[in-house]
Amino acid sequence: MNPKAGALRPLAIEIDVMRNPEGSARIAMGETVVLCSASVDEKVPPFLKGTGKGWVTAEYSMLPRSTNDRMAREAARGKQSGRTMEIQRLIGRALRAVVDLDSLGERTVIVDCDVLEADGGTRTASITGGAVALHRAFTWLVEQEKLRFHPMRDLVGAVSVGIVGGAPVLDLCYAEDSRAQVDLNVVMTGDGRFVEVQGTAEESPFTPAELETMLGLARTGLADIHQAQRRVLGIAEGRPA
Amino acid sequence: MNPKAGALRPLAIEIDVMRNPEGSARIAMGETVVLCSASVDEKVPPFLKGTGKGWVTAEYSMLPRSTNDRMAREAARGKQSGRTMEIQRLIGRALRAVVDLDSLGERTVIVDCDVLEADGGTRTASITGGAVALHRAFTWLVEQEKLRFHPMRDLVGAVSVGIVGGAPVLDLCYAEDSRAQVDLNVVMTGDGRFVEVQGTAEESPFTPAELETMLGLARTGLADIHQAQRRVLGIAEGRPA
Amino acid sequence: MNPKAGALRPLAIEIDVMRNPEGSARIAMGETVVLCSASVDEKVPPFLKGTGKGWVTAEYSMLPRSTNDRMAREAARGKQSGRTMEIQRLIGRALRAVVDLDSLGERTVIVDCDVLEADGGTRTASITGGAVALHRAFTWLVEQEKLRFHPMRDLVGAVSVGIVGGAPVLDLCYAEDSRAQVDLNVVMTGDGRFVEVQGTAEESPFTPAELETMLGLARTGLADIHQAQRRVLGIAEGRPA
Amino acid sequence: MNPKAGALRPLAIEIDVMRNPEGSARIAMGETVVLCSASVDEKVPPFLKGTGKGWVTAEYSMLPRSTNDRMAREAARGKQSGRTMEIQRLIGRALRAVVDLDSLGERTVIVDCDVLEADGGTRTASITGGAVALHRAFTWLVEQEKLRFHPMRDLVGAVSVGIVGGAPVLDLCYAEDSRAQVDLNVVMTGDGRFVEVQGTAEESPFTPAELETMLGLARTGLADIHQAQRRVLGIAEGRPA
Amino acid sequence: MNPKAGALRPLAIEIDVMRNPEGSARIAMGETVVLCSASVDEKVPPFLKGTGKGWVTAEYSMLPRSTNDRMAREAARGKQSGRTMEIQRLIGRALRAVVDLDSLGERTVIVDCDVLEADGGTRTASITGGAVALHRAFTWLVEQEKLRFHPMRDLVGAVSVGIVGGAPVLDLCYAEDSRAQVDLNVVMTGDGRFVEVQGTAEESPFTPAELETMLGLARTGLADIHQAQRRVLGIAEGRPA
Amino acid sequence: MNPKAGALRPLAIEIDVMRNPEGSARIAMGETVVLCSASVDEKVPPFLKGTGKGWVTAEYSMLPRSTNDRMAREAARGKQSGRTMEIQRLIGRALRAVVDLDSLGERTVIVDCDVLEADGGTRTASITGGAVALHRAFTWLVEQEKLRFHPMRDLVGAVSVGIVGGAPVLDLCYAEDSRAQVDLNVVMTGDGRFVEVQGTAEESPFTPAELETMLGLARTGLADIHQAQRRVLGIAEGRPA
Repeated sequence: MNPKAGALRPLAIEIDVMRNPEGSARIAMGETVVLCSASVDEKVPPFLKGTGKGWVTAEYSMLPRSTNDRMAREAARGKQSGRTMEIQRLIGRALRAVVDLDSLGERTVIVDCDVLEADGGTRTASITGGAVALHRAFTWLVEQEKLRFHPMRDLVGAVSVGIVGGAPVLDLCYAEDSRAQVDLNVVMTGDGRFVEVQGTAEESPFTPAELETMLGLARTGLADIHQAQRRVLGIAEGRPA
Repeated sequence: MNPKAGALRPLAIEIDVMRNPEGSARIAMGETVVLCSASVDEKVPPFLKGTGKGWVTAEYSMLPRSTNDRMAREAARGKQSGRTMEIQRLIGRALRAVVDLDSLGERTVIVDCDVLEADGGTRTASITGGAVALHRAFTWLVEQEKLRFHPMRDLVGAVSVGIVGGAPVLDLCYAEDSRAQVDLNVVMTGDGRFVEVQGTAEESPFTPAELETMLGLARTGLADIHQAQRRVLGIAEGRPA
Repeated sequence: MNPKAGALRPLAIEIDVMRNPEGSARIAMGETVVLCSASVDEKVPPFLKGTGKGWVTAEYSMLPRSTNDRMAREAARGKQSGRTMEIQRLIGRALRAVVDLDSLGERTVIVDCDVLEADGGTRTASITGGAVALHRAFTWLVEQEKLRFHPMRDLVGAVSVGIVGGAPVLDLCYAEDSRAQVDLNVVMTGDGRFVEVQGTAEESPFTPAELETMLGLARTGLADIHQAQRRVLGIAEGRPA
Repeated sequence: MNPKAGALRPLAIEIDVMRNPEGSARIAMGETVVLCSASVDEKVPPFLKGTGKGWVTAEYSMLPRSTNDRMAREAARGKQSGRTMEIQRLIGRALRAVVDLDSLGERTVIVDCDVLEADGGTRTASITGGAVALHRAFTWLVEQEKLRFHPMRDLVGAVSVGIVGGAPVLDLCYAEDSRAQVDLNVVMTGDGRFVEVQGTAEESPFTPAELETMLGLARTGLADIHQAQRRVLGIAEGRPA
Repeated sequence: MNPKAGALRPLAIEIDVMRNPEGSARIAMGETVVLCSASVDEKVPPFLKGTGKGWVTAEYSMLPRSTNDRMAREAARGKQSGRTMEIQRLIGRALRAVVDLDSLGERTVIVDCDVLEADGGTRTASITGGAVALHRAFTWLVEQEKLRFHPMRDLVGAVSVGIVGGAPVLDLCYAEDSRAQVDLNVVMTGDGRFVEVQGTAEESPFTPAELETMLGLARTGLADIHQAQRRVLGIAEGRPA
Repeated sequence: MNPKAGALRPLAIEIDVMRNPEGSARIAMGETVVLCSASVDEKVPPFLKGTGKGWVTAEYSMLPRSTNDRMAREAARGKQSGRTMEIQRLIGRALRAVVDLDSLGERTVIVDCDVLEADGGTRTASITGGAVALHRAFTWLVEQEKLRFHPMRDLVGAVSVGIVGGAPVLDLCYAEDSRAQVDLNVVMTGDGRFVEVQGTAEESPFTPAELETMLGLARTGLADIHQAQRRVLGIAEGRPA
């Protein structure tokens, strides 16, 4: 493995980049850039009414020209693609896995992930950046004295790994992703446990040994990602969130 | 682990159960029943025109009362849910992973998976049953002398594993699935390689050790599933497909 | 008329074939097979709220490959066809004609008719089978002591008749139907009265005398159909339902 | 039967009432008013391309306030109701039954029926008025020397009959229709043959004798309707169309 | 400017032309004909609930063959075009500008503008005719003693002006409109104030001087339009509405 | 008029801010921020095929949390609002007014305007920024030697003016806009001619004198806007574009 293949692309996260949302973050992983906002809504979906529990959900979209060829705008086509729905369901699940929905109370936080530039890894960048935006919104709720305790139990971040040309590569850019035989997205908490493991053989099936190598590589990258999240949020090492 | 937790539910596959499709199968895994058909269409999607390659795609649907509470019919609501789209994309990818699309030639096979009874594991049953229906359609193409070689390179089957009440369980029924802390769907080829690994922490994140245990359990179950596929398709042990 | 032209195709009805619905039936008329379920919902549409009356409605769908050429899935196309809507409105009206909606009370029974195999006469088979599923759901309501009286006032069944090659034919299969000059669907109660009479000149208009012949033939067939319904539901000859 | 119950409501048809269509007519049956236009399009649907045959199709709509209570506009709701689709399919079939599609050549005539005032019988008025508009469009095609022969083989008209308060009534207005136990729509050619017979027991099933009475009443009314069509189109008695 | 270019096309307004609406009008401006109805609904949109204020809104549609080439029916295509939405928003704003929504009370009046014949200026004719229909509905509310005061504070009418072949033209017909370099729609109250001014350079931008000329021409035409509205509504000169 | 009321908010335009589009710009007018991209597509809409002419079109969208209260995502709701369609039609018309579509040749440029922050004036900022992005895309086409001449004949910019609390105000922010009695959007070419003038009386109609005052104010602001466009694009004063 060449050194670059085992390293993350340059990662930069800024917080509080939008005027209106309760929490927001802008994340760049290599050339991929996602604008994340977390909006607090003092209502819950019908299935939670009266339970005292809150909800966290996500929406995902790509600007039409975030990609090399312009993609048709989903609002104009009148429906979201299966890919979009799959990704926003994934982001929502990943974020809920680290939130104490009981202590959030009967409110919803909607995390919008809008991809400004796409160069591979938009779903993982959305999770990493969305978690930061969500953390900021929770902090706002605590500062506003709407919550006594911050409901984020741990950090959550995500990264992709793949096998390209037979070799494992961390944090694939689009050019690598489109040549990958295997593509694995790993979502992990700050204490090193898995939230989601989604491996797909795009070209040829992969062995248990290859899975293990990729999972190891992902873990290395995720340590750096959690580190970057802690730094921008001002969370001391060793504290969960 | 109690013995039942490590075993598949009763599995039954019948072939050629419909009059019209080129291939069809009915699969029962426990109380879950899926009717699978494979329809040959002598056209390919636009992105494959002129390439000489074929395509395999899947559609998935549940009868409104396959579930305990009646679900609204997607055709009546005017759109497929995110869950449906996610599942049919998964089935399609799983099946394409074992098909030689070059030797299929410029034609599409559409695999319809219609769930007649749902008791957990409908997506994995759809993959296992869909692969059998697809194999039958390919055999028909060979028998009709539209193809010289059978384009299925290997079998593919799927199973779910979960952690329920702290213990790993193979092939979850609905009652187990709805209590599971972790839900892992594994799609595997006949030669024991992974096509998809999708693990989701519904309740609490899982450790690498737990992932390994679940993957091992899945592999045991998948050996039985491939065995059942071989039996109904009349494929000798040791032959790929 | 050759003897076969004046006879029903082989007719088989099974009850209680699904695990979840309050009532269910599987009907085969020749090669046409429809799975019917009746689901009780303890709510009524807005226009009946507070009236004390119940409602019966129907939905109809064909599996994509129930037909010779695969039909596009309506859920995927995002809307039901005019034909589907017309048929499900017909089934609903036919069933309501024999139900005492007052004694049903403020609840809805939804009858789902999913065509597994289509060889002509799917709408008439749906009515005949749907009435049996509905009867079973009512029986369940009585057995559960949710109703004191069974609200089905009479049986209802349906059959098609046509003029093919100048001669009247009962219970048309698809090949006959597509060659028919006239196509007449007749829905009739157990006591021999009409609920619906829908005759369409597909090719050439028909005379009053031809209509009379067709109606007579339909009545013969419907006597057998009501007989089959009574047998499977265990209703004595002479009792309405 | 009181004399009025056996008579048509006042019927008035005007032709060439719109500036743009190749054929147009305005029909009033009692207080029901429908504006019908027939538009020639020099294309056919895909299934007729290259066959040399033409097509006739219909669209139907009600102005939102043609009814007593304002109905939501279907364009605003984003879909046509099942009722609308059923009616426009009926109109299209009725008109095609009297057209020689071979001699029409590869062109489509679209008959738009827009209900300006609704007081019952809008579908039958649409057929009667639509046939007149269609005849005018065919005449235009002949006058323009685009056709050598007028492709309308016969007139076609429609009327409703019902049983209201136990007595048969011809040409029901809305108040009668909403109280009718049975509602029968009859579409008939100028030479007295049936194109469609659609009888529905809204309240209670009807006997064969009642059907016969209603059909007889319909025939009386249809003779007057065909007479009115002939008069406005200038067709001599005894000539088909 | 030739005299005709500075004059309105023949303008005719009739009131109370429909049976069901609380107010209605039919307006012809040249060959353009629009049927307008005003329907009272004793509800308001959610954002006005509990405010004591009423609402006025508009819907606009063209009959498919109101135009030279048949336009696809929006209900059949499943959505309203951007043009339709833009026009109905304009009509609604124009009408609300002269209505005292407080004195209307918590009810909505929906003004439907259905274009029967289109020869340019359908949106301006809809405003002029819609205002008349709305006035009639308000009068009905006063007559029914549902309102003490008529809530229309002033008349409102609209006209188009354009620059065609370099010269200003009032009240453009379709042939003029499609050749116009500039198209200006002016909505004005009875006392000569602007409600909307919408000028669009279809071909080449226009100078401030050209704008002034066009606005002057519009004012001349609008005086005649308000005069016609007053006449048909029986409003004395000098009274607002 | 206080001095601030007659001045533009701080205006900043950056070019070439995205990696993929042929042209791009980011415009900030006060707190409103719009990201504009211009994408070249070597196709034209059907109505231009074979004419040798090109096309320019626009799409507009707001990020859900660009506003104070989160707006539902149009892609999720399945359709664009009337407001969105109206705005993107306006942007497209404004840009086409200064483009020589003949010299563009048979290609389309799609200008996407995505509002990142909304504080009033998003449609006018989209026009001003979109024109800059479009200019850059044309420059790219010239540099790539796909075009010999730059097809932009002049600059085009836009600004809003309003009457707030009785006084005219230039370049309204959201708080001013929501209190405005009149709202006027003016689109103007670099040589001072109008492309669009859209004035709306939200509260009370406006007099011709008020219109004149507002147009004068708009012209002052537009001179500054065109100046800013020239500066960022490096166009000498006196040159059109």
